Amino acid sequence: MKKIKRAERMVAVMQALMSEPNTLIPLTVLAERFGVAKSTISEDLLAIKETMLYTGQGRLETVSGAAGGVRYIPEIPADEARGFLEILAERLSSGDRLLAGGFLYMLDLLYDPKILRPLGLIFAGAFREENPDVVVTIETKGIPLALVTAEALGVPMVIIRHGNKVTEGTTVSINYVSGSSKRIQTMTLGRRALEPGKRVLIIDDFMKAGGTALGMINLLKEFEADVVGVGVLMEIRLEDEPKLVSDYLSLLQLRELDLVNGIVQVVPQDISFLD
Amino acid sequence: MKKIKRAERMVAVMQALMSEPNTLIPLTVLAERFGVAKSTISEDLLAIKETMLYTGQGRLETVSGAAGGVRYIPEIPADEARGFLEILAERLSSGDRLLAGGFLYMLDLLYDPKILRPLGLIFAGAFREENPDVVVTIETKGIPLALVTAEALGVPMVIIRHGNKVTEGTTVSINYVSGSSKRIQTMTLGRRALEPGKRVLIIDDFMKAGGTALGMINLLKEFEADVVGVGVLMEIRLEDEPKLVSDYLSLLQLRELDLVNGIVQVVPQDISFLD
Repeated sequence: MKKIKRAERMVAVMQALMSEPNTLIPLTVLAERFGVAKSTISEDLLAIKETMLYTGQGRLETVSGAAGGVRYIPEIPADEARGFLEILAERLSSGDRLLAGGFLYMLDLLYDPKILRPLGLIFAGAFREENPDVVVTIETKGIPLALVTAEALGVPMVIIRHGNKVTEGTTVSINYVSGSSKRIQTMTLGRRALEPGKRVLIIDDFMKAGGTALGMINLLKEFEADVVGVGVLMEIRLEDEPKLVSDYLSLLQLRELDLVNGIVQVVPQDISFLD
Repeated sequence: MKKIKRAERMVAVMQALMSEPNTLIPLTVLAERFGVAKSTISEDLLAIKETMLYTGQGRLETVSGAAGGVRYIPEIPADEARGFLEILAERLSSGDRLLAGGFLYMLDLLYDPKILRPLGLIFAGAFREENPDVVVTIETKGIPLALVTAEALGVPMVIIRHGNKVTEGTTVSINYVSGSSKRIQTMTLGRRALEPGKRVLIIDDFMKAGGTALGMINLLKEFEADVVGVGVLMEIRLEDEPKLVSDYLSLLQLRELDLVNGIVQVVPQDISFLD
């Protein structure tokens, strides 16, 4: 690449870093790519670092030494996250979303990358300090949410499957009682999908009694996993019944779902962990 | 935000654009955020635009007029894409990946955001000119691939479910014969998930005979959808049997899978559409 001016080079460096978030890029690679000295790249990075303190949308992490480099950590400012969850809660609080059987239609939001991206950043902000090695979810609706969280954290994702007809080599299955259906179901994970002893973050779309989450935690014990966190997009408030899982984070709460009068009330939860 | 110097502001503008890819951001919003005149932001954007011609990792699209603004379109340079697919093919060409029943273990790659991101950009580069409104896939393994493609294109994703026990309101189901299993199966999509008359891009992880893809195309006819493209990560070369779907794009081809001798050969396909 031909030599470019400082401002342009800083933009190009920023683009390179953001195109591979959470990936350590050696300074020599950047120096070579832009045809300048390593010290020049260092100066650029200092200025970029300072800029990001103002925007709050992410930060640079520099690792010194021979194996060192710089990586971009994407973040969401707390006030932006709050505003986003408020709007999301409002969009979900609509009688139009009521389905027969007392379900709330959420797929238009759960599968939209523009909604998912901030949600992934909020979950990542909540659990980054727990240093998860992997994000685990169960098919199907929670997969997109788990993937954007994994991407924001820079770790891979693992999907637990329903049933036990899974062609993934040796598998481990357990039975569990889904809190909502009260039926005994089976979930399965391939031995190969998760090495023993990993730090695991569980992400799912919805929690009612917590039966599915508890099943996942029990299945993960077979992989000697250390469950460092459980995050769900929405939980339903249960009047008298305690949840089967005690330690979890939810971003939204379903307060009311009245099929007869067509009333739905969803409220954002406290996310002061981002402050 | 306090006033910052030009280079720093350009970095901040770049970060704002890349944090919301494919989203039109009005120039007035950027001008206000950084406390400068709209004409100053225009000049910044011109310089950023030029920088991106060098990097090839994305481009700026400006829309003029009252409802105008600027959006960041993420892209992958053709040579980078080729190098990436070559490495991916090599990683897949390993006897260790053979599973009983003649399956190839791919989940460690299919669920890794750092592998998925370039794949999404390649699919987006292949189909962007077809202007899809939505990316459609079928659960489960193709979901992450479909999501990153949808994100790279800036459109939502829709997931077709297996079976017909789906609680998503009114649903449409069809039976299809999966080419690999030769069994009759059912796939289902909620009426609410896809408005009639949309331009649809189908993305899946694997194509053998094409029975699943054909089933999806047939199901989508019930939604008056216009299927503008079919993209699969890997296809298997079939000796004498023609595929059930003729017009599709595959990024990798499985040439050989020899369970007895432990040989797997995967090769990258031609991606000259990116040049």
